Parts: sequence; structure tokens; C-alpha cells
Amino acid sequence: MKSHTEYLTFRTKEKVEFIRITGEVEAAVEKSGVKEGFALVNPMHITAAVIVNDNEGGLIGDYIRTLERLVPYNAKYAHNVGEDNAAAHIWRQLMAHQVVLPITNGKLDFGTWEQVFYCEFDGQRQKRVLVKIIGE
Amino acid sequence: MKSHTEYLTFRTKEKVEFIRITGEVEAAVEKSGVKEGFALVNPMHITAAVIVNDNEGGLIGDYIRTLERLVPYNAKYAHNVGEDNAAAHIWRQLMAHQVVLPITNGKLDFGTWEQVFYCEFDGQRQKRVLVKIIGE
Amino acid sequence: MKSHTEYLTFRTKEKVEFIRITGEVEAAVEKSGVKEGFALVNPMHITAAVIVNDNEGGLIGDYIRTLERLVPYNAKYAHNVGEDNAAAHIWRQLMAHQVVLPITNGKLDFGTWEQVFYCEFDGQRQKRVLVKIIGE
Repeated sequence: MKSHTEYLTFRTKEKVEFIRITGEVEAAVEKSGVKEGFALVNPMHITAAVIVNDNEGGLIGDYIRTLERLVPYNAKYAHNVGEDNAAAHIWRQLMAHQVVLPITNGKLDFGTWEQVFYCEFDGQRQKRVLVKIIGE
Repeated sequence: MKSHTEYLTFRTKEKVEFIRITGEVEAAVEKSGVKEGFALVNPMHITAAVIVNDNEGGLIGDYIRTLERLVPYNAKYAHNVGEDNAAAHIWRQLMAHQVVLPITNGKLDFGTWEQVFYCEFDGQRQKRVLVKIIGE
Repeated sequence: MKSHTEYLTFRTKEKVEFIRITGEVEAAVEKSGVKEGFALVNPMHITAAVIVNDNEGGLIGDYIRTLERLVPYNAKYAHNVGEDNAAAHIWRQLMAHQVVLPITNGKLDFGTWEQVFYCEFDGQRQKRVLVKIIGE
């Protein structure tokens, strides 16, 4: 079994921002030398998510507006004593916070429209995302 | 390490439909020859989800009614320019879009009520689900 | 490839309760002898979730209040004929029901604030959580 571990770092300009990272994950897969296996892409911070979805700007806005409507960022939360990011913690659960990606023949085994995104919900500071690949 | 990859295909009658696929996944596990490992079950389309839940028709209706109440299919979305499936993209995130299943002694290591479902949110056309198994 | 499987058992006092299980998962990782790999932590019951989030009591209350506001436990559900737990099934999807954790150098490869929680949504009875580790 082979394994390969990488840490991507992000500092977003906006508090809430989606960044496409398919290329970074593909590069990690190539570097790993794994032909058949899994890539786990997991934010190491608990106010962010990694998802697979469509690279379409309108949709990204729809996600953010939907999250804000369901769980308003500036509502009252017990967590927000000296903090203001309770909603970010909740958003990342609603979006499902991590993905496991299939690797076949040395490449991400993706459908036509699958793209990987880092979803920052409490940005403007340094964050890390782990890419861990196991396989053969 | 062994690996095994299969692509299941679906064309649902309804736009929104849940299909139980536990048997298909079990068959893939058996074919893989893997005794100890993981099975990733991942829709290759971004308006669908794979979940583990209860095989009970009332509950499946409850899921669909809840999603429609929280994120109405026919509301206004920026994505819906020449498209009508923005809600399907969002629903699949709220439901958590993929599962990783444990394999022990050559079988899915499931509790009594765990069943795998393909959740189509934008159906009536050809869709694929990847089943990828790694282990030994 | 090595593998290791454990079953944690819980009987919560409350119907809805979050239990931190990072220590139990770390112990399983150590017992496995795996240095590089993945740990799947998966509830074997379909009215519970395993998540990674912050060990902060206020936030845990925020999660429960948000779930109750979005999907009220005692609303009418088709599933609730001789059952009362439809909302628990739905909550576990909204929270994303399972996690896959990275193992690097024989330890959970976690950021500073990542903690593993068992989220019981229909408790006061015996439940199991599977921890399955594969790697090398």
C-alpha cells in the first residue's frame, strides 16, 4: 500500500468564499503514484467544508444564500460569546464537511461535472486542508 | 491491496426518486474478493446523493417533503438560467452526497436497519454511481 | 495492508445527546498499529451521526436548537406510525452521518480544534458505532 499526505493552505479575502481545488487534488494524486485508491480531502478547521459540486458561479451564490436563509450568520447563538462564527460551524455540517474521492488508473474517477471546492465560512485567516491518499 | 470498481447506471421515472441499492453494493463487495476494507459509493452526478438510511416508504416521503419545505425546487435561483435543477444541487449537499461503507469478513458491516439508497433529485435521464472497493 | 475493527456502544441518558469520542477513536488507532491510513467512524443505527466539530457546549446547544427549528421533532411525519423518530432520521442526514479520519505517523491527523462526536438523536437505548481502520 502507498500513501501520500499534503496540506493545502488558504487565506480567503472574504469571510465566506468558495475556492475550486480540483487541480490541487489532481496534482496530489499524480504525486502519490497511486493508481487505484481513495483521496480524502478534509478541512482541518471546523468552520469550513470540502464538497464536490458544479463550477458555476450562480450556484455558489445560491448555496450561500440558502445557508444564510436557513441559519443566519448574525442570529443569536450560545457559541457566540467572544466568537461570531457559530453559523459557520453549522453551515459546514449542512454542506457535509469532507469528501472521499475515487482514484482509478491514476486519476480522479469523476463524472463530467464533478469539481472539488474548498468552502470557507469563517475566512480572512490562515486555514489548512489535508489531502490524504491511500492505495496502490 | 485489492481494488474493484463498478459503475451502476440509473434512469429514474420520476424527477425525484429514491432507489435502494444495497443488493448491488453487496454484489460488488462479493465480486471484489475484499474481506477487510472500505466501499465508497459516490454519485458521478452533482444533483444526486447516496445515503444510508431506513427502507421505509413513509420516511422517504418525509425526506422529500422536508427538502422541498427547506429549499423549494421551484423557487428563484441564480443557477436556474437555462437550468431548473439548482435545488437538486443543494438537496444533495443537505443529504450528504456519498457514503463509505465498512467491509468485514467479506460483507458490508451493517447494523440491522442500514440500507443504501441512491437519491435522484434531477432524474429522467441516464446517471451513474461509482462503487469503488479497496482492502484485502 | 492492516485492518482493525471495533464496536463502541452507547446508551445515552437523554433522547438527544452529543458524546465526545475522540479518545476512543485515538485508542483504536493506536491498537490498530496503522501508521498511514484512514479510520471510518460510522454509526450502525440510522438515527445517529458521527461528526467532527468543536468541543464547546454552547455550540452543541446551537446545533440541537437549529435542527429542532428546521425539522421539529414533534411535527407530523409519515414515518411516525408506531414510531416517533422521523426527525432523528432526517437530522442525521443534515449533520452528515459519518466521518473518515486521516491517520499520519500513527495518530489522527487533526487540526487544533477537531474533535469527534457521537450525536444521538433517538437515545435511551443501546446503540453501536463502528470504528474501522485500514492502512499500513
